[in-house]
Amino acid sequence: MLKYPADLLKLMGLFKKLPSVGGKTAERFAFQLLNWSEDQLKEFSYHLAVLKEKIKSCPECFCIMQEETCPFCQDTQRDKSLLCVIASPKDAYALEETHTFQGLYHVLGGLLSPLEKKHPEQLHLEALKKRLSILSVKEVIIALDSTLEGDATALYLKELLTSQGITASRLAFGLPIGSSLEYVDGGTLARALSGRQTF
Amino acid sequence: MLKYPADLLKLMGLFKKLPSVGGKTAERFAFQLLNWSEDQLKEFSYHLAVLKEKIKSCPECFCIMQEETCPFCQDTQRDKSLLCVIASPKDAYALEETHTFQGLYHVLGGLLSPLEKKHPEQLHLEALKKRLSILSVKEVIIALDSTLEGDATALYLKELLTSQGITASRLAFGLPIGSSLEYVDGGTLARALSGRQTF
Repeated sequence: MLKYPADLLKLMGLFKKLPSVGGKTAERFAFQLLNWSEDQLKEFSYHLAVLKEKIKSCPECFCIMQEETCPFCQDTQRDKSLLCVIASPKDAYALEETHTFQGLYHVLGGLLSPLEKKHPEQLHLEALKKRLSILSVKEVIIALDSTLEGDATALYLKELLTSQGITASRLAFGLPIGSSLEYVDGGTLARALSGRQTF
Repeated sequence: MLKYPADLLKLMGLFKKLPSVGGKTAERFAFQLLNWSEDQLKEFSYHLAVLKEKIKSCPECFCIMQEETCPFCQDTQRDKSLLCVIASPKDAYALEETHTFQGLYHVLGGLLSPLEKKHPEQLHLEALKKRLSILSVKEVIIALDSTLEGDATALYLKELLTSQGITASRLAFGLPIGSSLEYVDGGTLARALSGRQTF
């Protein structure tokens, strides 16, 4: 059977490593790139090559930063006694969009998952412990996915934090805003019921 | 509002130029790349930079080729009197997978579309006319999309070909294999009815 040219196949293979990109999508991407100008391709190539050099990880909170300036740790206006634990640097941007959190972040770099060989040692937990004492943190908000791995990691963190006398809280679970009861799944509804609030 | 680092935004902008990649997907791609190793990023970067150099367009049929060898034009086993006209080089690979076509291809490089400023001069029609006489083509199969633009281009080609006494045929329209009548749209059903075959 006729195969795509080797260099095109190689490029498709690289695209397939991106999240939710399968064979067909990778093919479309590669063929689309053949229509790009030489300049555009060189620009794309350049930005991939310098990515790690330009975008660094903050040694304190592990959020991403342009060059050497962490947008969170170096902001003196933020409340250092309030820490929000997140799985990936991307989550900080989602939380910032709410304009309701003024503390610092701490990126774990994943969630506990024995199946994917993610054990406590692979997460930035040692750094978290150090920061808790250095910053004299009073409350830690656990902002992790509501999945099996997220729940396991939250439980692990809760024990670690309460043993040190630090208040640990987790994001509320319930109905998404704008949702219709009819379409909400049973699990969410049960959590919304048990977490009901008087008003 | 807090913005992503400038270099990450730049990369997201480039990903958004790929087909069916929106803002959210571009964000996911960019953040995923931050987890790639330096070597993987360099490899990705390299393959984008050399794409145009390694993958060339055949000067005869406009199919893509690795370096200087066209997999179709340089295959002496193929029937040179049968030409299949396609819109993009990718279509040749889809047709090759059927193992039922043994002629040569001719890539138009798009479809006629006055709205997108695709006029006959922008398509590889002059080259097609030249090949028709050089190869003494007997039949041309028009394998274009069944869209408005595909239909218009097919009609244009049909007139061009029949005026030169060359048989022009178009891919059959009808029910896709494995389809259920219940879910087939009216247009397809109408074409399947009018194109019914005695057996």
